[in-house]
Amino acid sequence: MQPQAAYLVEDNGDLWLTEDEREHMKLSYRIRDVLFDQQSAYQHVMVLDSYDFGPMLVLDGVVQTTSMDGFIYNEMISHIPLNMHPEPRNVLIIGGGDLGAAREVCRYPDVGRVDLVEIDKLVVDACLEYLPDVAGHLKDNRVYYHFTDGVEFAAQCRSDYDVIIVDSSDPVGPAQALFERPFYQSLHNSLKERGIMVCQSQSPLFHRDVLGQAFGAVKELFPVSHLYTAVVPTYPGGLWSFSLGSKHYDRLRPAMLVRGTRYVNRDILHGCFRLPEFLQQFIASL
Amino acid sequence: MQPQAAYLVEDNGDLWLTEDEREHMKLSYRIRDVLFDQQSAYQHVMVLDSYDFGPMLVLDGVVQTTSMDGFIYNEMISHIPLNMHPEPRNVLIIGGGDLGAAREVCRYPDVGRVDLVEIDKLVVDACLEYLPDVAGHLKDNRVYYHFTDGVEFAAQCRSDYDVIIVDSSDPVGPAQALFERPFYQSLHNSLKERGIMVCQSQSPLFHRDVLGQAFGAVKELFPVSHLYTAVVPTYPGGLWSFSLGSKHYDRLRPAMLVRGTRYVNRDILHGCFRLPEFLQQFIASL
Repeated sequence: MQPQAAYLVEDNGDLWLTEDEREHMKLSYRIRDVLFDQQSAYQHVMVLDSYDFGPMLVLDGVVQTTSMDGFIYNEMISHIPLNMHPEPRNVLIIGGGDLGAAREVCRYPDVGRVDLVEIDKLVVDACLEYLPDVAGHLKDNRVYYHFTDGVEFAAQCRSDYDVIIVDSSDPVGPAQALFERPFYQSLHNSLKERGIMVCQSQSPLFHRDVLGQAFGAVKELFPVSHLYTAVVPTYPGGLWSFSLGSKHYDRLRPAMLVRGTRYVNRDILHGCFRLPEFLQQFIASL
Repeated sequence: MQPQAAYLVEDNGDLWLTEDEREHMKLSYRIRDVLFDQQSAYQHVMVLDSYDFGPMLVLDGVVQTTSMDGFIYNEMISHIPLNMHPEPRNVLIIGGGDLGAAREVCRYPDVGRVDLVEIDKLVVDACLEYLPDVAGHLKDNRVYYHFTDGVEFAAQCRSDYDVIIVDSSDPVGPAQALFERPFYQSLHNSLKERGIMVCQSQSPLFHRDVLGQAFGAVKELFPVSHLYTAVVPTYPGGLWSFSLGSKHYDRLRPAMLVRGTRYVNRDILHGCFRLPEFLQQFIASL
């Protein structure tokens, strides 16, 4: 396959992916091989094998997850809510086409059904085939795929879920509505009376407006709300935030943590809620 | 001033700094202005005003600290040991020419003397003048400057210090010896019988060999050893490690934390020692 897009450029025989989403900063990855390269109805989907991070999912030229560090994000968005809810039977994942979160959720035997709502089937197909370190060639008959719009899907649910995970891409294009107030109201309606939701809420350093919007909505709608953080090396700034809203439960149950995690452990379950001073001050101001 | 070096390039009227230290990854910053640009006997010293991070110290083309996020690193390398030692009177800082660590140490009224050993006076001069967000135009008569080699300086000390902070640059060129075993033995000798040392020990994701070397030496030499982490957005991978060795004390005293910090607070003082699973397993293997 030949590189077609402006963000994938050959230079002296080397292939480089340069993320061009940011105005004042560029991150370039040296690419060993193009594993997958197709245009869907929604976006340009590639899986590129990079030297430093292994195979990575790239949508419209922006790195979404990588074989090297995808486990950090996927464990953090999954195990925290699943360890706060004592009986997580029905789980909804909105986005998450790389299947990393679904894979983590499926580690819990209590989970009986996972509805995965991803707008772009091509992302799922590509990751199942070319991103095993993230998607784990996931085959689990508890997972039901819905290739449709997450905002519309959530708007039609009523008290169906114990846990909802919003694993969205950046708030540009189709993902924009996933950071707006009406969507959070739909999530609240979609949860059972003791349900818990979590969404990725971007960088506390670079996207403080988005974080404020997401966490502000969660704080307003749910009696229990927490912000927690993790380090995601391939996201700008490294520090990443997650906004959690709970209708009832407010305590982690580390005894429920499944074995075999690489990032989350008992220390992280508690430590991740301990926020730097500037972030505590920011969320207190919302 | 005109850009001279290969890492500072004009492109369509815009100035970009591209870090070329890594083989498979490049980080480029859009530059507003060159504030300082001189060659010392040791390195090429620049202060560049970037759009996203404000003025930043750049040595031989590699970003060392920035106005936007320098406080995270400098608070973490200073306040953790200073909150573990109940009477930190004499402090030695090796490296730290940006004066960020010295500035944090000087916030503690108990500190009577700070010896700062930086090989390159030009770095201190540049930061005092052009990097106020990090160096704070530091003027404190408790600080004694020694423009000499840190390894040689430490080799001549005997039981002089309560706290030693090793704020080195990456382990290439002159800084390489700061990650080797004999240097850690010198630090041990330089500390009083209840002294504490801390050094930055690079990225747990990208420089695991260096981290292993540094923390391994600390663990071998000191009865109390801890690894802790913080997020440093401008360092590759975001996650950064610090290795702490203590001859006696093993408890933080949050009541001693000075006011006005932006990253460190009581939550971080405890949370920073809570390590991800892969890192716990790695240091247990040393």
